[in-house]
Amino acid sequence: MNKSELVAEIVKKQSFLCVGLDTDINKIPEHLKSADDPIFAFNKAIVDATAQYAVAYKPNIAFYECYGIAGWKSLEKTVNYIKNKYPEIFLIADAKRGDIGNTSKMYAKAFLENLPFDAVTIAPYMGEDSVTPFLTYEGKWAILLALTSNKGAFDFQFKESDGKCLYEHVLSASQQWGNEENMMYVVGATKAEMLGNVRAIAPNHFLLVPGVGAQGGSLEAVAQYGMNKDCGLLVNSSRGIIYADSTDKFAEVAAEKSKELQLQMADLMKQFMK
Amino acid sequence: MNKSELVAEIVKKQSFLCVGLDTDINKIPEHLKSADDPIFAFNKAIVDATAQYAVAYKPNIAFYECYGIAGWKSLEKTVNYIKNKYPEIFLIADAKRGDIGNTSKMYAKAFLENLPFDAVTIAPYMGEDSVTPFLTYEGKWAILLALTSNKGAFDFQFKESDGKCLYEHVLSASQQWGNEENMMYVVGATKAEMLGNVRAIAPNHFLLVPGVGAQGGSLEAVAQYGMNKDCGLLVNSSRGIIYADSTDKFAEVAAEKSKELQLQMADLMKQFMK
Repeated sequence: MNKSELVAEIVKKQSFLCVGLDTDINKIPEHLKSADDPIFAFNKAIVDATAQYAVAYKPNIAFYECYGIAGWKSLEKTVNYIKNKYPEIFLIADAKRGDIGNTSKMYAKAFLENLPFDAVTIAPYMGEDSVTPFLTYEGKWAILLALTSNKGAFDFQFKESDGKCLYEHVLSASQQWGNEENMMYVVGATKAEMLGNVRAIAPNHFLLVPGVGAQGGSLEAVAQYGMNKDCGLLVNSSRGIIYADSTDKFAEVAAEKSKELQLQMADLMKQFMK
Repeated sequence: MNKSELVAEIVKKQSFLCVGLDTDINKIPEHLKSADDPIFAFNKAIVDATAQYAVAYKPNIAFYECYGIAGWKSLEKTVNYIKNKYPEIFLIADAKRGDIGNTSKMYAKAFLENLPFDAVTIAPYMGEDSVTPFLTYEGKWAILLALTSNKGAFDFQFKESDGKCLYEHVLSASQQWGNEENMMYVVGATKAEMLGNVRAIAPNHFLLVPGVGAQGGSLEAVAQYGMNKDCGLLVNSSRGIIYADSTDKFAEVAAEKSKELQLQMADLMKQFMK
């Protein structure tokens, strides 16, 4: 999905919501645990309930990989289900991959060719040749970790050299490798005021913002500092939606929570999308 | 496998060779392509031919993941085969994973619990909480990327702050999280003289050194700058062994190439292991 298609979806749905499918078998409602593939059954119900309010879904691959082959089956079924039923949805593999060039090519193939993902998150530590293989697919995206939302973000991402923090070097160097049509950045919402700083370096790129909801980032601050004329944001919520309820009403409640966020997002788009 | 067991194996075999199982279906001998699981058939033959000369095997996960479920099956079969037949072998998942704490826990489970790996390679960009979940398994290891052997290593790993390069910050900060019994570092052999520098910061940790062989790093320089009293090195060779021959003699030739390296390693251990 290219940038103008993504922006059109955001405008049409008045939403820049990404739902994180971090599906943990221990947290899904009891009555689903006897299903043939409980993780897929849960994901399917969540997606059907929330697709009208969301523009993107983001399975975190670790939650599938930790079940080996069975987990990869649940993942395949989930993303194929979404892509077939909701082709307008932007699909992100939150995989945080990255290796030397020839090997990154294999990861790109895994997610962008063999699975119908539109984008893959990438750890930038190994530099240019670890990222570029993800940029060669028309209408597909690499989403580079810039400023993450975890405590460990402070260990290296703020190391300052030549007057710039490491995450700022990642933002500027990577713009030599790709462009706003094939690269996005992960920027944590727990540091919303830094989004202004990110926007000064990357005014036109889409930003994938985790950490709104359960991790407590403020959606309004994210929009205020991070929104641009194309919206330019995908804001992820996972636990706050998919685990909002653990009874047989979990999908309905997930829909309500998504709708609440969508309504806030519609307001914020009126205010800040310019 | 704990450190003293690994050192004992190195001394016994007079080898610190790690064979990289970066098995590409397009590069394996023609006659294997009709096998039920060509990748497993290839790996099995390579392992059986080289196990007496090697102390470790390192499948790069990308080469399996790119075939989806079929690839994960080949990976499972390969590592179970090795662990059952050669329990003394150190098994490294070259996965370069890393995510926020709760999610890294899932990756640790995938490789260190559900699969019989002894170690996983980790990208350090997200800091402490992305690494520590891999350190909680008795006798298992996290292998942090410090200085990689690719061209892109120069993009960020040499950024200097507070008088130290990023890879040096990774080496020193991470020693607060783990120790020489549960943490190793990836240090590329294309920059062997920097191994001296790495040894000044991490004198006792094991180093996993890629890039000897096809990528042209010198084994002697690696031993000279990197070896310590426990040997402290695992030197990887992949293409130079597994693709040394593409006929039905591929396994024999792989054995010869491994033996050549093992003999060099035995000499270097006499010279530098002190």
